[in-house]
Amino acid sequence: MNLKNDLLLRAAKGEEVERIPVWTMRQAGRILKEYREVRAKAGSFINLAKSPEMAAEVTIQPVDILGVDAAIIFSDILVVPEAMNLPYEMVEKKGPVFPKTVKTETDIHALNTEDIEHHLAYVIDAIKLVKKELNGRVPLIGFAGAPFTIFCYMIEGKGSKTFSLAKKMLYTEPEISRALLQKITDVTITYLKAQIAAGADLVQIFDSWAGILSPEQYSAFAIPYIKQICDAIQETPVTVFAKGAYFAREEIGQLGCQVVGLDWNMSISESRKLIPNKTLQGNLDPCVLYGSFNEIERNTKAMLTAFGKQRYIANLGHGVYPDTNPDNVKCFIDTVKSF
Amino acid sequence: MNLKNDLLLRAAKGEEVERIPVWTMRQAGRILKEYREVRAKAGSFINLAKSPEMAAEVTIQPVDILGVDAAIIFSDILVVPEAMNLPYEMVEKKGPVFPKTVKTETDIHALNTEDIEHHLAYVIDAIKLVKKELNGRVPLIGFAGAPFTIFCYMIEGKGSKTFSLAKKMLYTEPEISRALLQKITDVTITYLKAQIAAGADLVQIFDSWAGILSPEQYSAFAIPYIKQICDAIQETPVTVFAKGAYFAREEIGQLGCQVVGLDWNMSISESRKLIPNKTLQGNLDPCVLYGSFNEIERNTKAMLTAFGKQRYIANLGHGVYPDTNPDNVKCFIDTVKSF
Repeated sequence: MNLKNDLLLRAAKGEEVERIPVWTMRQAGRILKEYREVRAKAGSFINLAKSPEMAAEVTIQPVDILGVDAAIIFSDILVVPEAMNLPYEMVEKKGPVFPKTVKTETDIHALNTEDIEHHLAYVIDAIKLVKKELNGRVPLIGFAGAPFTIFCYMIEGKGSKTFSLAKKMLYTEPEISRALLQKITDVTITYLKAQIAAGADLVQIFDSWAGILSPEQYSAFAIPYIKQICDAIQETPVTVFAKGAYFAREEIGQLGCQVVGLDWNMSISESRKLIPNKTLQGNLDPCVLYGSFNEIERNTKAMLTAFGKQRYIANLGHGVYPDTNPDNVKCFIDTVKSF
Repeated sequence: MNLKNDLLLRAAKGEEVERIPVWTMRQAGRILKEYREVRAKAGSFINLAKSPEMAAEVTIQPVDILGVDAAIIFSDILVVPEAMNLPYEMVEKKGPVFPKTVKTETDIHALNTEDIEHHLAYVIDAIKLVKKELNGRVPLIGFAGAPFTIFCYMIEGKGSKTFSLAKKMLYTEPEISRALLQKITDVTITYLKAQIAAGADLVQIFDSWAGILSPEQYSAFAIPYIKQICDAIQETPVTVFAKGAYFAREEIGQLGCQVVGLDWNMSISESRKLIPNKTLQGNLDPCVLYGSFNEIERNTKAMLTAFGKQRYIANLGHGVYPDTNPDNVKCFIDTVKSF
């Protein structure tokens, strides 16, 4: 199906665009009262993610309500460990918790790597529904966590400020760590290809915990697996967003991806120099959206001027915070669209 | 009193040293069973911090047990908000919690800025005891949180991944924010001067949450207040450790401090270029200490070679993690001392 608005894809491929495309990470989520209504009906975050109809509904909401130039499938990066036989729970005010974690080589052997499309059929079905309902209005973004970030949760079993258990594994058991990272990578490639087959027009890899690794460890334990994913995905553009990995920008810029996401700490001019041949995405501090419309416009315009119009996708430097007023998100989006 | 081992101070001042001085952040703490015994006797972290005798005892433990080249007074950066009339509690597995936070201008006016030496007499008394008991063996480091980090806790009331409430305040109420940051700065200067008068030989400013700010906000709301502190403290060398503020290294390098601390994400060669005229401190990934002695030695030596022997103080890039084997910390320290 031809897309009526393909700005995001053209920008990703480095083609000329008549205006800058814009979307925001976590746009399908708690900022919208329409989302919270569906979420309440679902009873839990996981129920919502596992219901293709409801997941499709909240995926499309920001396209209708906020006017973004792309939808991103409503899901969670932790569906991958779940499909590998490590289920998780979402604990209120605490986040994800895995009752079972990976501690030994035996635990790694016990992980499932088969029938991933089947285990994650609810995501694939949601993608098909979204594509049908969007009817070509805007592209749909698929996604997965980067292998190192998934590894962190599998070892640690929950969020952590330091992920010191996961890092300890890298230092004390590098071979076991590599075996686990490779399994995650293989499953992730299968999963992303299934998303693309179902209709995803671009896929984004989220390396949420990239910033906790030293530059040496990031080169050794993160980059090689992201590289495999980038090399394997030739069907659509790929975006790599490695939050906090400012030290790895040059290396990420040499991967086979088309777009590199920046967080709000990263200097725009420096990043353009370090990543000269790719489209950049980002990077407004999500806290700017707590300010007045004037402040949002001023900060957004300064960002757009610094990035320039081509090879650029406007976004925040992180997911939008749940207590942000949607009118302020709309102000951000409208400022980009009328720039 | 003359110091028998003044390597740390000579390195801080940029004087030549015959070997590299070494200590570790959080050395007086849970890694040592001797600490845990005193902590159990005290009943709570806060009781321990408020008892000059016990605080002095745990301050000196790592000098005796680990052989470090400096002691750092056992305390917490949150004693400053407490002295300003915002007491905190330490909640097991959760960290500090402030029952009362700052929300309005009225709350700022209500903060205490008087008699700081009196309110923090327990720290000052502990410093005097430590100096007496150390009897010149090694220098004693005093410390305080940087104004922005203290601001974060005062607004947010607890730890946070994003400190979005604190950042929201900066974006929506810049003038009120500045008033609060100034009050914290004034109190911090008084407090550090009292520590120095009591015997601290060097003071370190910890900007633990520096990394959550955008470069622009860091320049506007963090640097000016750290600068005031550096300019006010002429009695001893000052170390600035702004975790995560890689983007501000050049600016920090121009402050009136003598030492700049680096976290483990920061490239050593790049940091030497960005901060050419100061002593650097850091920056081994604390997770390296989970590895074997061989791995610890290899990583430590690589770090020492990269920093070079002069204008350098060996340390970790963050506080030592509580579950680290003290023998491994000792291996790190011995590797530096025999380099």
